[in-house]
Amino acid sequence: MTATEPADFRDFRDFRWDAVEHRPYKEDASAAFSAISRQVLFEAPALACELRYFEMQAGGYSTLERHQHMHGVMVFRGYGHCLLGSTVRAVAPFDLVRIPAWIWHQFRATRGETFGFLCMVNRERDRPQLPTEADLAALRANAEVAAFLDETLR
Amino acid sequence: MTATEPADFRDFRDFRWDAVEHRPYKEDASAAFSAISRQVLFEAPALACELRYFEMQAGGYSTLERHQHMHGVMVFRGYGHCLLGSTVRAVAPFDLVRIPAWIWHQFRATRGETFGFLCMVNRERDRPQLPTEADLAALRANAEVAAFLDETLR
Repeated sequence: MTATEPADFRDFRDFRWDAVEHRPYKEDASAAFSAISRQVLFEAPALACELRYFEMQAGGYSTLERHQHMHGVMVFRGYGHCLLGSTVRAVAPFDLVRIPAWIWHQFRATRGETFGFLCMVNRERDRPQLPTEADLAALRANAEVAAFLDETLR
Repeated sequence: MTATEPADFRDFRDFRWDAVEHRPYKEDASAAFSAISRQVLFEAPALACELRYFEMQAGGYSTLERHQHMHGVMVFRGYGHCLLGSTVRAVAPFDLVRIPAWIWHQFRATRGETFGFLCMVNRERDRPQLPTEADLAALRANAEVAAFLDETLR
């Protein structure tokens, strides 16, 4: 009952964790995401959620998507912006963002620096939807959202 | 589909979050915990886990307990020590500790400074067990564990 495995402790150093696989910065040909890496910090059959860390290089961005499941996000490194529905918000380390069901959302490293966030999500969840051309046009009808997507935020 | 509520964003400042209830530092007469506060960062019916932030003043400690459910912990503020089964470990900001089922565990602010951690836990979970006198004696059979509990760690 009192034995522990070394893997129970994972030291942090320079935004990596021991024994946690780091999926390197990568691009998606469809531009759905850019310059983003991923580490899964907690994932276990006994845990009903996973905790992941996503990190973007300057100018990088997470996938613009929506889904039935909810996200609980904590900004973890650097400053950037978040799109949540029709709201564009500057965010700073350790700010919280609750992403409700079916709301379009994306994070962008808009401040010329590395930007990362923790994301808590149900282990069992639906697949994200990507925006159609019509969805993008609807989002772009809002000038601030268009500036966010075009990386022309002031 | 694109409306957002102000409560979706919760700014961080000085280890508090906007619109998050802060349960102040408190003591337990039985010494099960001491000088620890609690904030629930994410909790929703649609999320299968909760994310909480616990913070101890210097010398404070979390409840020594065990339970069937698992904890995923990330140290968030300051340096301290963690007891996990028969292991006593110094921990630093952003280190991860996975606490398996039925393992005795406790966090202590052993470094003369405020010490805090994030804890991800299933929304549906069993009640923690507290140690009996016999359990405590078994834990104290390990000299390092005894020093941890007695606050005499070097």
